[in-house]
Amino acid sequence: MPCISPCSAGPAEASRQLFRRHVKGTTVIRINPSILSADFANLESELQRIGTADAVHVDVMDNHFVPNLTLGLPVVQRIHEVSPLPLDVHLMIEDPDRWAPQYAEAGAASVTFHAEAAAAPVRLARGLRDAGARAGMALRPATPVEPYLDMLAELDMLLVMTVEPGFGGQSFLDLTLPKIRRAAEAIRGAGLPLVVQVDGGITTETIQRAADAGATVFVAGSSVYGADDAAVAIESLRTAAAASR
Amino acid sequence: MPCISPCSAGPAEASRQLFRRHVKGTTVIRINPSILSADFANLESELQRIGTADAVHVDVMDNHFVPNLTLGLPVVQRIHEVSPLPLDVHLMIEDPDRWAPQYAEAGAASVTFHAEAAAAPVRLARGLRDAGARAGMALRPATPVEPYLDMLAELDMLLVMTVEPGFGGQSFLDLTLPKIRRAAEAIRGAGLPLVVQVDGGITTETIQRAADAGATVFVAGSSVYGADDAAVAIESLRTAAAASR
Amino acid sequence: MPCISPCSAGPAEASRQLFRRHVKGTTVIRINPSILSADFANLESELQRIGTADAVHVDVMDNHFVPNLTLGLPVVQRIHEVSPLPLDVHLMIEDPDRWAPQYAEAGAASVTFHAEAAAAPVRLARGLRDAGARAGMALRPATPVEPYLDMLAELDMLLVMTVEPGFGGQSFLDLTLPKIRRAAEAIRGAGLPLVVQVDGGITTETIQRAADAGATVFVAGSSVYGADDAAVAIESLRTAAAASR
Amino acid sequence: MPCISPCSAGPAEASRQLFRRHVKGTTVIRINPSILSADFANLESELQRIGTADAVHVDVMDNHFVPNLTLGLPVVQRIHEVSPLPLDVHLMIEDPDRWAPQYAEAGAASVTFHAEAAAAPVRLARGLRDAGARAGMALRPATPVEPYLDMLAELDMLLVMTVEPGFGGQSFLDLTLPKIRRAAEAIRGAGLPLVVQVDGGITTETIQRAADAGATVFVAGSSVYGADDAAVAIESLRTAAAASR
Amino acid sequence: MPCISPCSAGPAEASRQLFRRHVKGTTVIRINPSILSADFANLESELQRIGTADAVHVDVMDNHFVPNLTLGLPVVQRIHEVSPLPLDVHLMIEDPDRWAPQYAEAGAASVTFHAEAAAAPVRLARGLRDAGARAGMALRPATPVEPYLDMLAELDMLLVMTVEPGFGGQSFLDLTLPKIRRAAEAIRGAGLPLVVQVDGGITTETIQRAADAGATVFVAGSSVYGADDAAVAIESLRTAAAASR
Amino acid sequence: MPCISPCSAGPAEASRQLFRRHVKGTTVIRINPSILSADFANLESELQRIGTADAVHVDVMDNHFVPNLTLGLPVVQRIHEVSPLPLDVHLMIEDPDRWAPQYAEAGAASVTFHAEAAAAPVRLARGLRDAGARAGMALRPATPVEPYLDMLAELDMLLVMTVEPGFGGQSFLDLTLPKIRRAAEAIRGAGLPLVVQVDGGITTETIQRAADAGATVFVAGSSVYGADDAAVAIESLRTAAAASR
Repeated sequence: MPCISPCSAGPAEASRQLFRRHVKGTTVIRINPSILSADFANLESELQRIGTADAVHVDVMDNHFVPNLTLGLPVVQRIHEVSPLPLDVHLMIEDPDRWAPQYAEAGAASVTFHAEAAAAPVRLARGLRDAGARAGMALRPATPVEPYLDMLAELDMLLVMTVEPGFGGQSFLDLTLPKIRRAAEAIRGAGLPLVVQVDGGITTETIQRAADAGATVFVAGSSVYGADDAAVAIESLRTAAAASR
Repeated sequence: MPCISPCSAGPAEASRQLFRRHVKGTTVIRINPSILSADFANLESELQRIGTADAVHVDVMDNHFVPNLTLGLPVVQRIHEVSPLPLDVHLMIEDPDRWAPQYAEAGAASVTFHAEAAAAPVRLARGLRDAGARAGMALRPATPVEPYLDMLAELDMLLVMTVEPGFGGQSFLDLTLPKIRRAAEAIRGAGLPLVVQVDGGITTETIQRAADAGATVFVAGSSVYGADDAAVAIESLRTAAAASR
Repeated sequence: MPCISPCSAGPAEASRQLFRRHVKGTTVIRINPSILSADFANLESELQRIGTADAVHVDVMDNHFVPNLTLGLPVVQRIHEVSPLPLDVHLMIEDPDRWAPQYAEAGAASVTFHAEAAAAPVRLARGLRDAGARAGMALRPATPVEPYLDMLAELDMLLVMTVEPGFGGQSFLDLTLPKIRRAAEAIRGAGLPLVVQVDGGITTETIQRAADAGATVFVAGSSVYGADDAAVAIESLRTAAAASR
Repeated sequence: MPCISPCSAGPAEASRQLFRRHVKGTTVIRINPSILSADFANLESELQRIGTADAVHVDVMDNHFVPNLTLGLPVVQRIHEVSPLPLDVHLMIEDPDRWAPQYAEAGAASVTFHAEAAAAPVRLARGLRDAGARAGMALRPATPVEPYLDMLAELDMLLVMTVEPGFGGQSFLDLTLPKIRRAAEAIRGAGLPLVVQVDGGITTETIQRAADAGATVFVAGSSVYGADDAAVAIESLRTAAAASR
Repeated sequence: MPCISPCSAGPAEASRQLFRRHVKGTTVIRINPSILSADFANLESELQRIGTADAVHVDVMDNHFVPNLTLGLPVVQRIHEVSPLPLDVHLMIEDPDRWAPQYAEAGAASVTFHAEAAAAPVRLARGLRDAGARAGMALRPATPVEPYLDMLAELDMLLVMTVEPGFGGQSFLDLTLPKIRRAAEAIRGAGLPLVVQVDGGITTETIQRAADAGATVFVAGSSVYGADDAAVAIESLRTAAAASR
Repeated sequence: MPCISPCSAGPAEASRQLFRRHVKGTTVIRINPSILSADFANLESELQRIGTADAVHVDVMDNHFVPNLTLGLPVVQRIHEVSPLPLDVHLMIEDPDRWAPQYAEAGAASVTFHAEAAAAPVRLARGLRDAGARAGMALRPATPVEPYLDMLAELDMLLVMTVEPGFGGQSFLDLTLPKIRRAAEAIRGAGLPLVVQVDGGITTETIQRAADAGATVFVAGSSVYGADDAAVAIESLRTAAAASR
């Protein structure tokens, strides 16, 4: 029985359905609001606010890979316990080979590490899958996708950063669009089921360009949590992304 | 007019009074529950639960100075906005010379950096005071206090770790008691107003030994947040600490 | 009114004209002698010696990105004050995201960081431009240009190292010529105004091969400062470079 | 007079012949058993066991480039003294620019550093050759070969890792085959004499796929040292590799 | 029944007896030859040569804590399997908090980490004991012992380096004698069972000064392995050390 | 024949005399102006300005040990060639074990490394002396002297920083006076010839307190180079220091 987005099942089940739908041929547009824009003092209710989202994007920063420190494992563990949504964990940290598997064990539906930080990305991706999570790999705006085309089959998601991670107040970088396009084409050409996620500066306007280029999963920050009605904002983003195709 | 603990004034005012009372000659026992033991999904209400505490202890870890990643600046900024209590920020991070002043600017009542991590602790302590915060310096269990006796006048608080920071499930290290004692004696001998804080494994039993040795500010984790009634737990700790003197 | 090289205007003005000429369609050959070959004890007079140069190339090394330590910000600030020429600062340092903007603020006409060292090169290049400098990005001999083609519009200059930076006594690496060629073609193909600079082992002989490949800005070390008459040496290099096209 | 494998000459001479044969046009299949699978308590006799091999592959790991620490310079120096075979040293260490030349001076027939770790690979390769060794460069499974095509002439060997280095118990990664193929084609296209080595998960089955893709030097671990008769195992590998072409 | 040195029991048993004897009140002089001076190509027979020693000292270096790389975990595991003697592992490596427990699990009788490298030495020492090994802590020549006096009860051995670790060809540093003396006095004063080991430049002459100062376990390098008869050399060292008391 | 300050001999000879005078029993006050306050564009003439000084203090910073980058080896080499004064090189850099000897080989009369940065300070000090320089060791304001008392005989100079190194615009830290006093007493008590140097915030006023505490070599920055007549400023400092004793 197909699952209509948003999924009503529990996080684990929802997560599995979330990705399964994609391989059925219909491109599913997903909106994953970023917890970075939520009210950190009331995460449980903030998670309720985005009940119609596809997943919650959790930004983990360590002051070293990026010049900011947000939140880490113990917070993610607690978010997992109370979240009605699957966790889409984005690790902007050094040495993900060492730390990432713990986030999979904490119940994240997907764990995304940075290609620039991983020493053994193939092994890491396999370890994440073995631990029950989807494996994602992220690229900074100036990191090319070509070096990683041979290993796409090891991944469930490719995250193309559309702003430089770790800094606030940046706008969408159009210079990442050709990379998104080339990534999507390579994936399509190889008949692979992995999805392209974009993160940074996503609005109802920029989402269309990213969707045109081939992204199907969109991290939204202030455009969702800054809205009066998050559900309306999520729906607007979905509509905008769908219209562009 | 003296302020009776807990202070009813706003955080900034409370913080100033918090430390001012000490220099009046009466030793004030303070209990600062650690947010590390709170429910991260509901920090605002968790902060309400400890309304009778003297401050909230915020544990910032960066995966590098200690092998754990908890929470950082954006979360601290939000905690400050909603907290009825002063923020007692404990930075278990590398390069505090670079990052610590931002926590003072975020409104922390005190910012404590680790002696093992600071390159220029005298300058850093002065910078924290210039930014309006109290300056604290922390020592790991195996770090001696003697090297820092010459600079005690630059500090408002000395934090003696009573467990190794960054790991869970450890019990109070009695081997730190002689250091607490030597620190307290040096402070008393020099007639300085700074207080000795202890952090790690504090229960109604261990708090007495730490208080006997000279500590007056106590970080409490699960012994407060794990209790049914946090106010009762805090009061028990205060009573136990006071009884020992 | 076009500016005939060398420019007689002050550094800031000269710098602006320096680059403006290029976009007019005429390829301008530039010779930027490297201060690394000058007499460090008499920089002010050494700068006078190269009055006919287009800019002075300042090599900043930090013992970490390269195994040598040359000079840094306070020296650059002073060079800027006394230099009749624009400053072309080349940062062979780690963490340029943190340090590079200070060189722009010190008055450098252009600041070049290394692609291998920058965490957020797009953001950094924008920051340099915002601070009033031209933004350059450098590539070591073994670093390819292809990963950076999408971000060329963010740059004013691409520096292709023609020796391994940080070591002395090396000769020009011909293996970098195909990279220069591909970079120049990509720039031309995209209709972008950025220039290709080369640095390392430039003589009247090697400059021709580099110019043939598409470089137009040439860093010259001992071939200028080691000559009896720097102006003659600069003119020889310009002639050699121009002859090759 | 051509040397029939295995060479009976001493290590230095053997080494020179080892590589000379290749440039004569006939593809020579080489099997280099890895000392990592030998009995570390009896290396001298373990080296005797593989007398029919082409070289002994020595895995140097430093706990930093890879999460394992094996053996280093003083052990390599001693292996060189007692080995009847040329030493094929593979440095899985940080800062090879600093340490690699010492292994060449210790008598290694070839020294292979990792492209991901070298700051100045062109200069390093030249330094190794100047010290009398063959220069090899290794690529992790997720590192592309394209960035290094311009510098292939500086190398005697390209090592494509077919498992993530530094971890045990992994199987051959087929995703590296396209990279081996592209490398071999580029080498052939440029008419260069360098050989492609593969390391990781090599068995009589996987060796055929690697050989098909263009590798001619094979590191074998447990498939040789775990066999009752190492000579038979080596011969089986050679036969399998040769059969595939 | 007391065990007469050398012990004939297996390593594990020998190790237990080795240390048990000490707590009986009689000071036992121990000679632990360093494997760094053995023939790395024949470790099994080299271990036989020192059958009358008390333990074999294994020097693990990682190129980072000291500028040398010797051998690591897989070699230690194998040495343990073939050694008739207990293993006294000395970790001259960074981040022992992460790596040291593996050496205890590999069967080392004692594992010694460096105070300068450990982040959480109390926790680490406890972890080593929990894993069945004796816990040792080492101090470089310029590292004082005073900061660690409070934690002596957590240790089974204190290793005072008598040369700078990681470099060859150094002679015994007499300036370390006062530190050995102060350490031994503190241990005696506290009634603790831990022993003081010295490492570096130990000969029949220097051993007397170290023994006079209070050391009872002596690492010997070339003075044992460089001798024609290792048993005679060991006996000479024991006699010299015993004579001095 | 005693040498009257300033010495007229060449740098090498002057340097040797500079220190020899001290061991004769008469305390010699020395003023070493810091090149950090000189005009970097005209170092040769700036060195002439301080002809009556005892040495020129050269501040080497690497952006890592301190957050500033000043100048390094090639500049120091050139300063040595033109300087009429001995060079007193102060290395505020990481890994002095690796880099410091090069400064001795460049002709520095003394080379001072930081205790906090050196891995093997005893060996390093000996290496500097072997290379013909005096060996100095520096302590940051918060670094105690006690840990190094055992190794004082290895040093010719102890530099007590009286401001945090690497930052500008700081004033003299009185909290360092007790450390200077304890260091001077320990040196006197041991009958050692080494001198105590202070660096940071030295004026005609603060110099007296430092001299009272036991310092005899004073680094002066803007108080010399910022004066109209450097010779007068140097004389004023000498007089002030001498008056205090």
